[in-house]
Amino acid sequence: MEQVINYIEENQDRYLNELIELLKIKSISADSAYRGEIKRGAEWVADRLKKIGFDHVEVKETKGCPAVYGDYLHAGKDKPTILLYGHYDVQPPDPLEKWTNPPFEPVVKDGALYARGTADDKGQLYTHLCAFEALITQTGGLPVNVKVFIEGEEEAGTGATDLFVEQNPELLACDAITISDTSWNRPDLPTIVTSLRGLCYLEVKVKGPSRDVHSGVYGGKIQNPLNAMAKIIAQLQDENGVIQIPGYYDDVVKLTEQERKDFARVNDDEYLKKEIGVKALWGEKGFSTEERNWARPSLDVHGVWGGYMGEGSKTVIASEGHFKISSRIVANQNPEKCCKMIKDYIESICPQGVEVEVKVLHYGEPVMVPVDSPYLVAAQNAFESAFAKRPQLVREGASIPITAVFQKVLKAPSIMVGFGLNADNIHSPDENFRLEHFYKGIKTCAYLYDEFSRVKA
Amino acid sequence: MEQVINYIEENQDRYLNELIELLKIKSISADSAYRGEIKRGAEWVADRLKKIGFDHVEVKETKGCPAVYGDYLHAGKDKPTILLYGHYDVQPPDPLEKWTNPPFEPVVKDGALYARGTADDKGQLYTHLCAFEALITQTGGLPVNVKVFIEGEEEAGTGATDLFVEQNPELLACDAITISDTSWNRPDLPTIVTSLRGLCYLEVKVKGPSRDVHSGVYGGKIQNPLNAMAKIIAQLQDENGVIQIPGYYDDVVKLTEQERKDFARVNDDEYLKKEIGVKALWGEKGFSTEERNWARPSLDVHGVWGGYMGEGSKTVIASEGHFKISSRIVANQNPEKCCKMIKDYIESICPQGVEVEVKVLHYGEPVMVPVDSPYLVAAQNAFESAFAKRPQLVREGASIPITAVFQKVLKAPSIMVGFGLNADNIHSPDENFRLEHFYKGIKTCAYLYDEFSRVKA
Repeated sequence: MEQVINYIEENQDRYLNELIELLKIKSISADSAYRGEIKRGAEWVADRLKKIGFDHVEVKETKGCPAVYGDYLHAGKDKPTILLYGHYDVQPPDPLEKWTNPPFEPVVKDGALYARGTADDKGQLYTHLCAFEALITQTGGLPVNVKVFIEGEEEAGTGATDLFVEQNPELLACDAITISDTSWNRPDLPTIVTSLRGLCYLEVKVKGPSRDVHSGVYGGKIQNPLNAMAKIIAQLQDENGVIQIPGYYDDVVKLTEQERKDFARVNDDEYLKKEIGVKALWGEKGFSTEERNWARPSLDVHGVWGGYMGEGSKTVIASEGHFKISSRIVANQNPEKCCKMIKDYIESICPQGVEVEVKVLHYGEPVMVPVDSPYLVAAQNAFESAFAKRPQLVREGASIPITAVFQKVLKAPSIMVGFGLNADNIHSPDENFRLEHFYKGIKTCAYLYDEFSRVKA
Repeated sequence: MEQVINYIEENQDRYLNELIELLKIKSISADSAYRGEIKRGAEWVADRLKKIGFDHVEVKETKGCPAVYGDYLHAGKDKPTILLYGHYDVQPPDPLEKWTNPPFEPVVKDGALYARGTADDKGQLYTHLCAFEALITQTGGLPVNVKVFIEGEEEAGTGATDLFVEQNPELLACDAITISDTSWNRPDLPTIVTSLRGLCYLEVKVKGPSRDVHSGVYGGKIQNPLNAMAKIIAQLQDENGVIQIPGYYDDVVKLTEQERKDFARVNDDEYLKKEIGVKALWGEKGFSTEERNWARPSLDVHGVWGGYMGEGSKTVIASEGHFKISSRIVANQNPEKCCKMIKDYIESICPQGVEVEVKVLHYGEPVMVPVDSPYLVAAQNAFESAFAKRPQLVREGASIPITAVFQKVLKAPSIMVGFGLNADNIHSPDENFRLEHFYKGIKTCAYLYDEFSRVKA
């Protein structure tokens, strides 16, 4: 491996320039005006794979933006097959005026590369391609069988990629999946994500009188839909942050003492308070901040609206109130079951004098990688080799919906080896990716596929 | 009086045509584009007063739209002086497309006159002017001293008229005030309003993290401002509708058994449920619907907003939530004190992890006319003479802010002899005023000032 690592060090500048090329492509999937740039993005990735030496490289059409497939299956049948997943599409760069430099003109500054997509996910996924190139040129091949599947609409979320995976289980069949699309809480704390939360997203309408009415003439006579809506939301959690839906925690996997200890090493309340500008944190009593975010279901209202929202005062009792709400669910909760529980509960606590209409907008499964998976151990070794620090196994409060689809269709664990930081401004102006993490990420990937080669397939 | 009543009957059609003339003037005070029409409205009223025989008629400039003043003070020092208050301005007619006929082209249909301002307040106030004309032409004068004060910005609510009253106490000095700007619950139930609620109007901001954050990455870690806002609103009233602000009911005047009996005669829950399309009424336990609306403080959220209010789903924890809220207060509650109590209480129940900013937008005093006022007894007699039915003394859940100013500055009771119906669509499309109520209203006014002449000044 020494030769490979030396080669990576010698070629750092070239890798950076290649990444800059990719970053200049405005592959915004959510905006159909950029379909040409999406095509350029897919073709760039496909060309690169071909140049590195991958076979069967093809831009695959989906019902949405195309995905890129390619494979390198020459390691032998006794070696595991790894599927690399990533996405070449990016979030829209708005608000443009908040960028220090234009989002599609990458710039290196203070040890980081600034551009839309640096951390999410072009820079992160490119670490793998660079490692493949280094391994192939320096050792004559890859130590494991590799399939590459880079999609183009992760940020659009239309479900087209999910459908492609469901319709192509043989093409994508593998023993494990690698994904670099997660980030660390703090720069001094390398982490590997082993679990993602699922999601139940609902919208609720609270209906009162058939028209908006005068609060003087009717105030005190009838239930006010906005007051009633508040009563409903307030009853979802108690003052200790415990979700009040009967049976909601029944399926939640309990944390082991070891997991609680591991989480405690990562937990940093003071850092978090400063980062988001609050005086106090809050949540389910009896659990630390990271335990609540990673291993306990949460429940958040995302939007509320109703009545008079303009300037000054209007004395109206609104006919309707609305709110959007989601619950992040954890292993081993079932999203369909949870959605039904939330819906039933909201209907059951509807105050007298108003009616509720609860609609499930969408949901997704939580994901959990067994912490004793040999692929995970291999990933930890690889991290340690590159970063000189054993990474913590952590969880993630958010969701990467495709991992649940992989889990279901491919029956393989997703090994989430992320090199980003929470502070990288993904989805925000001035998105960036530390050069140190890019270069060490390439090395980590080289070690990673090498480590994988010692796992029994 | 027989001669006066006969004269009114003979001149009904003329009165109607004069009112139609006034209704054609688009005297919309809230929209400065109609300032010319406001001027026309004031001049029309002034001209009419002059023609009837009033002295000192003048269009008085205020800081807002002008008011019209005129007096007829020839009844003698032993007779009371009555101030007639009304407003010649109207609400904007929007939404225009919901009107069956154009709002400023009055039309008679099914026994009612349809146009903006028919019931609120041109038609109602014109009953008095017609009665004055009938009394003067048929009896040679008015039986009491009368001052007329018709303002032009009641629907704009800038406070300019309040200021004018405060600055002109001698001009407007009187023993009682007559106002026809209220309405009956049901057409078979003539009512006189003896009490109006006051108002405390506040706006609240609930502040969480310094920016909108991702509900996956932060959900469970921090207090969500929208969930917290719901907790605050939910704690304002308990499940029985009792306001939870400590001491909030301390100053509330208790209802007598007689008042509860009187209210019960007017109360009609089934009628109300149908009128506004709800399956159940709701409010403070232990009080009937009308008791809650007329004699108990109420508390209503008028608008809530925050977070993502668009289509579909966005998993954001909003940085801020907002709501507008008011409490209608009753005699003998003090609005400044109540505003402070609401503000203090909201601040005291602010959940951990968020901050609140409570702003008082405005407030107004409740008003109560002593039910044994001889002017009120006179008004009841007048109603009975015209409608052949003794009117109920009722209260009103809404506010007419000027009455509190009259109470404070002129120290005189406002006798609220309204001829409208709750179903007249005031402030809404197809506003109308029953012709029967217009004609009987004129007779009531004739009887009214005659009855007043027997009250000891």
